Amino acid sequence: MISLNQGNLKKFITDEEIQKTAFDVRKAHETLHSRRGKGAEFTGWLDLPSRIPDKFLSDLQKLTKEVKKNSDCVISVGIGGSYLGIRAAVEFLKPVKGLPIYYAGHNLNSDSLFSLMESLKKKRVTLLVISKSGTTTEPAVVFRILKKFMEKKYSAVQLKKRIICVTDEKKGALLKIAQKQGYRTFVISDDVGGRFSVLTPVGLVPLAFVGVDIKKLVQGARAAQKEFAAEDFEKNTAYQYAAARYLLYKQGKVIEVLSSFYDNFFYVAEWWKQLFGESEGKAGKGIFPASVTLTTDLHSMGQLLQDGMRNIFETFLVIENQKSKVMIPKGKEDLDGFNCVAGKDLDFVNKQAYLATAMAHLEGGVPNMTITISKADEENLGRLFYFFEKAVAISGYLLGVNPFDQPGVEAYKKKMFHLLGK
Amino acid sequence: MISLNQGNLKKFITDEEIQKTAFDVRKAHETLHSRRGKGAEFTGWLDLPSRIPDKFLSDLQKLTKEVKKNSDCVISVGIGGSYLGIRAAVEFLKPVKGLPIYYAGHNLNSDSLFSLMESLKKKRVTLLVISKSGTTTEPAVVFRILKKFMEKKYSAVQLKKRIICVTDEKKGALLKIAQKQGYRTFVISDDVGGRFSVLTPVGLVPLAFVGVDIKKLVQGARAAQKEFAAEDFEKNTAYQYAAARYLLYKQGKVIEVLSSFYDNFFYVAEWWKQLFGESEGKAGKGIFPASVTLTTDLHSMGQLLQDGMRNIFETFLVIENQKSKVMIPKGKEDLDGFNCVAGKDLDFVNKQAYLATAMAHLEGGVPNMTITISKADEENLGRLFYFFEKAVAISGYLLGVNPFDQPGVEAYKKKMFHLLGK
Repeated sequence: MISLNQGNLKKFITDEEIQKTAFDVRKAHETLHSRRGKGAEFTGWLDLPSRIPDKFLSDLQKLTKEVKKNSDCVISVGIGGSYLGIRAAVEFLKPVKGLPIYYAGHNLNSDSLFSLMESLKKKRVTLLVISKSGTTTEPAVVFRILKKFMEKKYSAVQLKKRIICVTDEKKGALLKIAQKQGYRTFVISDDVGGRFSVLTPVGLVPLAFVGVDIKKLVQGARAAQKEFAAEDFEKNTAYQYAAARYLLYKQGKVIEVLSSFYDNFFYVAEWWKQLFGESEGKAGKGIFPASVTLTTDLHSMGQLLQDGMRNIFETFLVIENQKSKVMIPKGKEDLDGFNCVAGKDLDFVNKQAYLATAMAHLEGGVPNMTITISKADEENLGRLFYFFEKAVAISGYLLGVNPFDQPGVEAYKKKMFHLLGK
Repeated sequence: MISLNQGNLKKFITDEEIQKTAFDVRKAHETLHSRRGKGAEFTGWLDLPSRIPDKFLSDLQKLTKEVKKNSDCVISVGIGGSYLGIRAAVEFLKPVKGLPIYYAGHNLNSDSLFSLMESLKKKRVTLLVISKSGTTTEPAVVFRILKKFMEKKYSAVQLKKRIICVTDEKKGALLKIAQKQGYRTFVISDDVGGRFSVLTPVGLVPLAFVGVDIKKLVQGARAAQKEFAAEDFEKNTAYQYAAARYLLYKQGKVIEVLSSFYDNFFYVAEWWKQLFGESEGKAGKGIFPASVTLTTDLHSMGQLLQDGMRNIFETFLVIENQKSKVMIPKGKEDLDGFNCVAGKDLDFVNKQAYLATAMAHLEGGVPNMTITISKADEENLGRLFYFFEKAVAISGYLLGVNPFDQPGVEAYKKKMFHLLGK
C-alpha cells in the first residue's frame, strides 16, 4: 500500500488551485491513456505490468537456478536506466538467497574496474550486458575489457552460457556480437524508454539472479497499474503528487528533496532522480530533484533545509514497518537523558524524528508531503516504481514537455565522440 | 597540488565584477584572520594543521598497532561532522593496511543496525564513539545499544581497551560515561565546529585505525594552510573559488553541482555538502549544494543539467592520475565502433568525457569551473579539505552570514525531544 499525506501543503496551495490543476490532470490523463501526447511511442510502460507473461517469469526463475549453479556472482554492465533500477531494487530489498551482484560500465573509473577484476579473478562469473544499442560508450568500452577478462577465464563453449545480453530485438552492435558469439539474449522492447525499463528484462533478468522475488515485484506493479489508472483525481494519489509538485514549482519551489529515513532507500532515490530529472528537465524547465537520507543528513543538509533559501519543497518517504526490532536499553544513571525511550524499538525514535522534521521544516517554510509504504518488500517496491512512473508522465504533460525523450543527453556524447575520433 | 580553472565562467562573470568582489574577499580575509568576524570563536580550524603536534600523530600510530592486534574491525559511532569526514577519507583513499570500519549512530535505521550486529557477532570489535556532548540522539541511543552488545561479548577489563570515546575535554554525558567506565578518551576542542573537525581526533583517530596515512594527510593540510593564507586574490585559488560562487549566486545560479568523475569521490562530496550547506544555508540565503558522480549521472541528471532550468552552476573535480591502468582491447571487427580508443587506458576516455561535458554544459548555459588534484592520495585530500574549509569561510562572510554556526539544526531536535518526552 502507498499512501500520500498532503496536509503540510495547505499553507502553500489553495483548494481552488488544486481544483484547477485537477482539470489539467484530467486532460493529461486522457492524453497519456489515449496515447496521443508527446512521446506516445514510448508509453509501453503504461500497461507493461499486466503484459508481462507469467511464463516469462517462470522461465527466468528456471534460468536463475542454472546460473546460480555455475556462478559465484554476476557482473551487470549497464548505465542510466540499465543500471539504476536494478541497483535500486537490490539495495532496497537486500535479497539474501541469490548471487552477489557487481556493477560495471556505469562509469569510466580505471581504479574501480581494476579492483573489481582483481577481486573476481578466482570467482565463477556470469556477465550480463545491458544496452539497447551496444554503442553507448561506458558499457561498450567496459564490455570490451570484461569480455577479454572472461575469455581468459573460460572456453568459447562456456562463454555461451556465461555471457548474457539484454539488447534490441533486431539491430545494434550488442545484438550482432551476441549472435556472432552465440551468447544468450533477452529483448529490450522499443516502446519503453530506459528510465521506465526496470520491469522489462533490463531489470527482471539481473533481479532474478540476485534473488529478488520478481513475481511479487510484478504483482505490486500490476496492482499499481490498476490503482493509478483511476481518472478520478480524488482517488489517484499519483495524480495528487504530480499536481502538488506542479503547483509548488509554479510558486518558485524549484528544488524537490526526496527525504527518506532509511539508508537502503538511497538508490531508489537515485532511480527517482533519473526518472524525474530526465523526464522534466528540458526546454529550460523542470524541478531539480535532490535526495537526502535522514536522519543522517539532518546533520548536514538540515541547516539549509530549515533555514536557507525558500526555493525547496520536500517529499518524505516513510516505511511503516521494519523487519527487525532493536530495543534501546535502560541506563542505570541516565547520563545521556535517553531513559525516556528505554524499552522502545529504535524505529520508534526514527518515526518521531520524521514527525518532528516534517513539523520543523513546515514551520521553516518548506512545504512537504509524505509517501508511506507498509514494508520494504518486493510488492511495495513494484507499486512504488509504477506510482512514480505514472506521476512523472502526468507531471511532464502538465509542464508542457515531452516526458519520454532526453535530447540533452546527446550533447556531451557528440562532443566526446569528436574528441575520441569516433 | 590543487589547481582551479575558471575559463568557462567568462561568459557569465566580468573582470570588473571579479575585481569588485576581490576587494570584498580581502576584507573577509582580514576579518577571518584577525578573528574578529561572526563566529570567530569557532575558527580554530584556521591554523589547526600547523598546531597538530607530531607527537600526537606518532602516539596515535602506536595505539593503532595495539588496536589492530586485538581487533578485526572498528565500529565508528557518530553523525554529521563526526561521520562524514571519516567516511569521505576512507572511501576516497580505500586504505588496505588497516582495520575495516563500520558506521553506526549516523541514522536510526533498525534493520541496518540489526544486520551490523549480526555480522559482527563473531568478530573482535573496537568501538569508537564520537560525540562532543554525548546527548545527540542518534549516536547516544545507538551507543546504548552497542554498549550492551559489547558488554555481552567482553569483560569490564577488556571494554576499557575496546571502547574509545572522542568527546569534550571537561563536560558532557559521554565524558562522564567514559570516566565512570574507564574508557580511553580523546578530546574535541571547543574552537573547531563539527564540519571542520576532520583533522582533529574526530577524524584522525578512526582514520589511523583504518590505515590512512594520517601524517601525510596532515602534511597536505599544512601545505594548504600556507598556500591559502595568501592575501593576494590572484594567488589564492580558494578565494577565487569563493568569489566565483558568490557572483554566480547573485545572478540566480542558486544550485551548485559538484561533479566528479570518480565513484570513490562520492563521500567527499557528501562532506562538502555539509560544509557548504550548513555554513551558508541560513537566514533565507545560501547556494543549494548538490553532487553527481560522472559519467554515471550524465545518464540520469545529465538531461536536466544540459537543458533544464538555468539556475545551476557546476564545479568539476578531476584527478590527474589514476593508480591503475586498464587498457581497452581492440575488436576484430569493431562492431561497436570503439577501435578508435583501442590500446588506450580507460582513464583517457574518462578525461575526454570530462572535456566534452564541460564544453557541452557551458553551451547549454551552465557556467562551470574545474578543480584538479594530481592523485587520490592522503596529501591531496588533506589539501582539498583545507581548500574547501578556507573557501567556505570567505564565502560565508561574502554572503553576510556566520559561516560557523548552525542554529537551524536545533529545530527538529527540539520537536523530537518533545515527542520523545525528553
